[in-house]
Amino acid sequence: MTKHLLRDLENLKKRILTVGAMVEEAIAKSTSALLDRRVDLSKQVLLGEGLIDATEVLVEEECLKVLALHQPVAADLRFIVMVLKANSDLERMGDLAENIAERAGYLCENEPLRALPEQKRMVEQVRAMVRETLDAVVDLDVDKARKVLQSDIEVDRLNREVFAVLQDLMVRDSGTVARALHTLSASRNLERIADHATNVAEDVIFLCEGQIIRHRGRKLGPVTKR
Amino acid sequence: MTKHLLRDLENLKKRILTVGAMVEEAIAKSTSALLDRRVDLSKQVLLGEGLIDATEVLVEEECLKVLALHQPVAADLRFIVMVLKANSDLERMGDLAENIAERAGYLCENEPLRALPEQKRMVEQVRAMVRETLDAVVDLDVDKARKVLQSDIEVDRLNREVFAVLQDLMVRDSGTVARALHTLSASRNLERIADHATNVAEDVIFLCEGQIIRHRGRKLGPVTKR
Repeated sequence: MTKHLLRDLENLKKRILTVGAMVEEAIAKSTSALLDRRVDLSKQVLLGEGLIDATEVLVEEECLKVLALHQPVAADLRFIVMVLKANSDLERMGDLAENIAERAGYLCENEPLRALPEQKRMVEQVRAMVRETLDAVVDLDVDKARKVLQSDIEVDRLNREVFAVLQDLMVRDSGTVARALHTLSASRNLERIADHATNVAEDVIFLCEGQIIRHRGRKLGPVTKR
Repeated sequence: MTKHLLRDLENLKKRILTVGAMVEEAIAKSTSALLDRRVDLSKQVLLGEGLIDATEVLVEEECLKVLALHQPVAADLRFIVMVLKANSDLERMGDLAENIAERAGYLCENEPLRALPEQKRMVEQVRAMVRETLDAVVDLDVDKARKVLQSDIEVDRLNREVFAVLQDLMVRDSGTVARALHTLSASRNLERIADHATNVAEDVIFLCEGQIIRHRGRKLGPVTKR
């Protein structure tokens, strides 16, 4: 590998971690807005939305430049394709954090629903998963990436619990329908964040082991599967 | 461009269109299952789920091979990156069609809700959008791709209408909650299919014009924005 390619690949890694840190912050703020009724944090997330998008575009351009300039092969090529895909997943995680912030904004303006310990656990799990995913990317660590895949199963389970509780609430008290739907939407967005983290973890494993492990029966959106 | 690269790029285009045709069929069947209560079509979609996934993996491997073998630059490089990204979007559209098929399966087993002409229009619009997106990919046609972006706005609007109707139904009659949630989920999945089609269309425009037009204020999941 030439010195220039090495430097450019290190730069790509830094860039993708910058996007990752921004997304992590958006998730932390939007979920705090949701759990602690912090409308100020919700607003912060919505104000910062353009920055993640702009950074994603820059990273993609950077990847194309490195591909065109160095025409890397084998592991280097796979690394760049991993960055390209992770970049796209991270940007969508940022979009989902915004959606949670919007739902939280609505919920802050209305009477609180009953406490949802399942959703709190889901938030903790998803935050830890995103952290682990970014660590797996930095260290190209297959063990961490596999832990992410395990966590996703737990997130799906918690999401089904939240769904059941909220459906029950709506049936028993029609006055809760609007708020329950917003809470449900926040939960679903959390679950989708976990799905995107899983995509990134799968791509890290592919990069390290040359094995495509997608599609082991995992499906999207099991929330409404009953 | 060498003769071999030309042949490999043509092959990639054929492959991505094969994935596209499979996804289109899954969407057609799952939405017919939903609108016409055709449980047989729902089952067909769920039985065929592995095939789209397997084909997506093949196309990705093919892209990596062509990149490594020919080390293409400029437009050829961008074309392959477009195929890589479209491949991933199409596979997710297939997952979403499966989710719709599952929702339809549940709804077929239960008493029908009131008619939802808004959802029927949404289905028509999304099907046309997916067709147009695939045409834009085959012909690298920017005008068709721009039409897809326009249609997405209309799909979002219809989705909000469906949401309002169903929320109202749940508030007025708690006996409808479970079925309304499944119907809502189908609608949201349709809207997400339209979002992925939009991603592909944006990548076609980027390929043709070298201009990244993502993030013009479009957001995910406006369904619960009220």
